[in-house]
Amino acid sequence: MNNHPDLARRRLLATGSGALAVAGLTGVSRVTAQTPQTAPAAGASQKPLPPYIAWKDADALIVHTPTTVETKRTAFGTGAITPAERLYIRNNIAAPDVSIVANRDAWQLSVEGVRQPRTLSVAELKTLGLETVAMVLQCSGNGRGYFPSKPNGTKWQVGAAGNLIWSGVPLRAVVESLGGPTAGMRFITSTGGEALPAGIDPKTVIVERSVPITALGDALLAWEMNGEPVPHAHGGPLRLIVPGYSGVNHIKYIKRLALTHDETDAAIQATRYRLAPLGTKENPSQPAVWEMDPKSWINYPAPDAGPVKRGWVQIHGVAMGGTQAPRKVDVSLDGGQTWREASFIGPNMGRYAWRSFVLQADLKPGAYMMASRVTDSQGRVQVETSMDNTGGYLNSGWRAHAFAVNVA
Amino acid sequence: MNNHPDLARRRLLATGSGALAVAGLTGVSRVTAQTPQTAPAAGASQKPLPPYIAWKDADALIVHTPTTVETKRTAFGTGAITPAERLYIRNNIAAPDVSIVANRDAWQLSVEGVRQPRTLSVAELKTLGLETVAMVLQCSGNGRGYFPSKPNGTKWQVGAAGNLIWSGVPLRAVVESLGGPTAGMRFITSTGGEALPAGIDPKTVIVERSVPITALGDALLAWEMNGEPVPHAHGGPLRLIVPGYSGVNHIKYIKRLALTHDETDAAIQATRYRLAPLGTKENPSQPAVWEMDPKSWINYPAPDAGPVKRGWVQIHGVAMGGTQAPRKVDVSLDGGQTWREASFIGPNMGRYAWRSFVLQADLKPGAYMMASRVTDSQGRVQVETSMDNTGGYLNSGWRAHAFAVNVA
Repeated sequence: MNNHPDLARRRLLATGSGALAVAGLTGVSRVTAQTPQTAPAAGASQKPLPPYIAWKDADALIVHTPTTVETKRTAFGTGAITPAERLYIRNNIAAPDVSIVANRDAWQLSVEGVRQPRTLSVAELKTLGLETVAMVLQCSGNGRGYFPSKPNGTKWQVGAAGNLIWSGVPLRAVVESLGGPTAGMRFITSTGGEALPAGIDPKTVIVERSVPITALGDALLAWEMNGEPVPHAHGGPLRLIVPGYSGVNHIKYIKRLALTHDETDAAIQATRYRLAPLGTKENPSQPAVWEMDPKSWINYPAPDAGPVKRGWVQIHGVAMGGTQAPRKVDVSLDGGQTWREASFIGPNMGRYAWRSFVLQADLKPGAYMMASRVTDSQGRVQVETSMDNTGGYLNSGWRAHAFAVNVA
Repeated sequence: MNNHPDLARRRLLATGSGALAVAGLTGVSRVTAQTPQTAPAAGASQKPLPPYIAWKDADALIVHTPTTVETKRTAFGTGAITPAERLYIRNNIAAPDVSIVANRDAWQLSVEGVRQPRTLSVAELKTLGLETVAMVLQCSGNGRGYFPSKPNGTKWQVGAAGNLIWSGVPLRAVVESLGGPTAGMRFITSTGGEALPAGIDPKTVIVERSVPITALGDALLAWEMNGEPVPHAHGGPLRLIVPGYSGVNHIKYIKRLALTHDETDAAIQATRYRLAPLGTKENPSQPAVWEMDPKSWINYPAPDAGPVKRGWVQIHGVAMGGTQAPRKVDVSLDGGQTWREASFIGPNMGRYAWRSFVLQADLKPGAYMMASRVTDSQGRVQVETSMDNTGGYLNSGWRAHAFAVNVA
């Protein structure tokens, strides 16, 4: 919350696009004249944002690689909705050229596995229905950094997640308008619009995922995120949204949607994003990474942010139920020996959203081990420890997310 | 919804700060190389954004003057929350220097009219409580352009409004921590941190407003807007938020908050923002512009956007209750002769928020007169016609907001 959006946004002008030299340029001088003299931000020595997301708030983000960018814990705030400028990035392969959003309404989606298969433009989709849903988008590997086995892959902490508002057409309305599913279909199989690298078996790289056909109930084909056209970096012009499912299932720049009898045999479905016990390889016999679990974490105080001042502290964080609304959150200051119920703050945005919570505590000097634990509306409690697994997916264990805080 | 945020954000680099010449600059070339070749945006010939809000989406905004900037109707989207980049601007006098947000936690607020008056920093306020509220921020003059008398002042249509999520400390928690109100206080009187021009009676220009002390119930001292520190352009580091009240009452860069027996005699309270019958001057005997009324409008189809294609159309807009949650919205296609109930879409964010609504209609070619009318949870219905008044405030009449659409 000590970030400075005005400054960060201005910094775009000066440094967001790389080596742009600003000295003496008309216009920029008016901007820099207004820039307060402050010490360099903590993130100043970090890797810069890659050019395709130069519009994001650099100070709010941790750049792991150009395609894996994490929201800082301290940048979540307490407003529940994650601004696009602070939202994480995770791409499996290179995105299509940005020219695909030059005419968003012209983007084409092929719909198959229905009685009247056909290709629809976004403009046509917009005539078929309109729905809006608030939903946590969370990378399947969020929390991987907290698994003891140190699985391969980005060591996400908590910041490969955000709570967003999506608008589009209900997928069921599209399927109904095309005569309904062909008999016997059990999955929704969706394909992203990425160009595939040449000279390699497409099945090994194509972004194509299957989810159970029951997801038809709440899935959207979305053209808006947080009240704006879906940014290209987040899957615009059209993204599949499957509320309650982890990030990899929300296919970006979706070009094909098929109701299918079987799961796709693309590697990203068959031999990746599987919950494989440690020591085994991922394979289709194991559970797919689909629905998310109840999960919560504390954003303030933050670990590694120096000692907290004694006295009243507003301990806050976010809590999600995964597929059911969060009902309550407990906070522990002693590593789970004792718990106190926190209060939700702000709007309840439905079963797929997260909520901010706060616990007011009068803290004396000393060492604390902070943890949070959510219970969903069905009574399901966030687990103490998630199963460590080969791919490092779906870590929601509260103990792994606990951290030490010093109060002085 | 045909705007292009990636492009708009990139345009910041090229043109957002004025006459910056980009040809040949390292870095920018990478950006422009990615910019799709499109026809100039509709807004390209408009006034440019003033430098202090160069970070906003130029394509989403109408620049009336450097201090009065309106959201385009087509830029509201259906996600209910208004991104900061698309939010309107209205300042009564010049803002304080942006250096006041260099160290947000150090900003000082003087609290008076309580048993233990004192000055508190934002850092101290953050220890006293934390609450979050979704709330419509609407300029008191929004809709002025639709009053038949053509009052003086910016001719806002619908875009001097947004739905935002604010976080801060409940004002009642601050007052309680200072021993509670001094006896007999009836108003909350707040003063903005603007520097006043020299050589002029301060009372004529100071931004100081009084609201009834009952507003203590839900008022916040907010340091976050939409999950980010409140942008300087919107009142950061600290803004008074009075849910249900019109824009002028939410004091930006608040530096003094006093519980008072009487309303302030500042001109902005005494002789402006009063509901004065046409032909009379505004004066303190008239109702102050405080609470907002039930109001709704249609965002799509938009007026003046050319003919709409025949067939199914998703007519959508936003609806607010003012101080009570919206309960239902009716839409008319014939200028109010007949009405059909629309559906709300997206999350219900509480009594002070607006909601998106949609009506699916199968439109044949012809001329339509579109209108919407909200009913709040207490059964209060949006008025057909608001009282025209000298200042042109609080226009919520559905008839004045109706418009013609051609379907071809």
